[in-house]
Amino acid sequence: MGKIICTGLGPGDPDLISVRSDRLIRAARHVAYFRKAGRRGQARRIVEGMLAPEVREYPMEYPVTTELPFGSAEYNQLLASFYDDWAGRLADLATTNDVVVLCEGDPLFYGSFMHLQTRLQGRVETEIVPGINGMTGCWNATGIPITWGDDVLAVLMGTLPEDDLLRHMQSADALVVMKTGRHLPKVRRALERAGRLDDAWLVERGTMPGQRVMRLAESETGECPYFATILVHGHGRRPELEE
Amino acid sequence: MGKIICTGLGPGDPDLISVRSDRLIRAARHVAYFRKAGRRGQARRIVEGMLAPEVREYPMEYPVTTELPFGSAEYNQLLASFYDDWAGRLADLATTNDVVVLCEGDPLFYGSFMHLQTRLQGRVETEIVPGINGMTGCWNATGIPITWGDDVLAVLMGTLPEDDLLRHMQSADALVVMKTGRHLPKVRRALERAGRLDDAWLVERGTMPGQRVMRLAESETGECPYFATILVHGHGRRPELEE
Repeated sequence: MGKIICTGLGPGDPDLISVRSDRLIRAARHVAYFRKAGRRGQARRIVEGMLAPEVREYPMEYPVTTELPFGSAEYNQLLASFYDDWAGRLADLATTNDVVVLCEGDPLFYGSFMHLQTRLQGRVETEIVPGINGMTGCWNATGIPITWGDDVLAVLMGTLPEDDLLRHMQSADALVVMKTGRHLPKVRRALERAGRLDDAWLVERGTMPGQRVMRLAESETGECPYFATILVHGHGRRPELEE
Repeated sequence: MGKIICTGLGPGDPDLISVRSDRLIRAARHVAYFRKAGRRGQARRIVEGMLAPEVREYPMEYPVTTELPFGSAEYNQLLASFYDDWAGRLADLATTNDVVVLCEGDPLFYGSFMHLQTRLQGRVETEIVPGINGMTGCWNATGIPITWGDDVLAVLMGTLPEDDLLRHMQSADALVVMKTGRHLPKVRRALERAGRLDDAWLVERGTMPGQRVMRLAESETGECPYFATILVHGHGRRPELEE
């Protein structure tokens, strides 16, 4: 009886994979990973050159979504079947073999593996190996501490309504905004309304080839890659001494 | 001319150090790390068995604070001299050697190295290698995703005033509270007022020997270790479809 091991890959640079994940990936005989249909896939790219020659690969390709609006009931149904199907296939494989699932960043931080994990519960043993999450790679790319002292950090998704973004941008010291993409103009407006646009950085492909780090106010105002991350660094909050 | 390389050690398990930090630490001839006076130090403990036989170690011991109130002007002055002093010593060493500085977690996420880094700027080349931060080790210890979908995550310090804690606890989906220690009763009250106490977990020594994971409501109500972390997992927020 094998098990399913989800290994966090970190932010993109293969040198930032943990010693444990690195060892598991190199020793793996069965390796699965998510990717968009027709793409090589970011997770697969990170482990290029690390896989054993006799490895069997299982690319789990997300269903194509051009006909269905993202977030619609039909699309969610399609996604659920996709996860059901792969949970079944991996569980079958794991009756005789260990299976390593590659996950960008940290698997439990906005990861996709959890959709398999919930479906595998009680059917097969699973193990998760943490990774350096993508936002950590991004603030390291700026070389500036994201938080110190008693700073409050808020991690926000660019998909949120503008007023929600604004509220958090006004109340937290340090900010990370992920899933920006076509939401960039809205995120920019919210930062401007919060008086924080001039302190914001845009990081594309943090720790990866083609990394770009720039001040958001100086970047193009249109779209940016879906996985671009916006950062506002904290300044080391010191709360009033209490009691 | 050498340089100063700050290596993130991750949450505690040496197996979770990145491949790059692992290689740098094993090859290092000069290794510095912070610790409390009279203690072995957590950073040093993590790398036990990894250092080269001929390594020279530089424990940077925080000034003893029993006589001065933490956060007072006098204490801050003492700390500033401590960082000045070590920045000078490491810069001198780096004129002829590479120096590796060990930092728990990720160096740019509530780390102490930044106080050296600001003092070293322009004097010596520095490099930072990211690590898995402590909170990631803690949510991995629970085995439950901390965030998914469009969840908002707030990272809070237990040192904050209760009303600040409450406000963030009411508005974020997922919560991490660090630096809890003697602030546990206040953090608990804030969670209770926000209606979130029953969803909170307490993780002590995440990924380290002696790890404890328990529901906060079922734990002792008094103090907890300073580095205990409280978590409330998100449930996968789906914002209303926009436009």
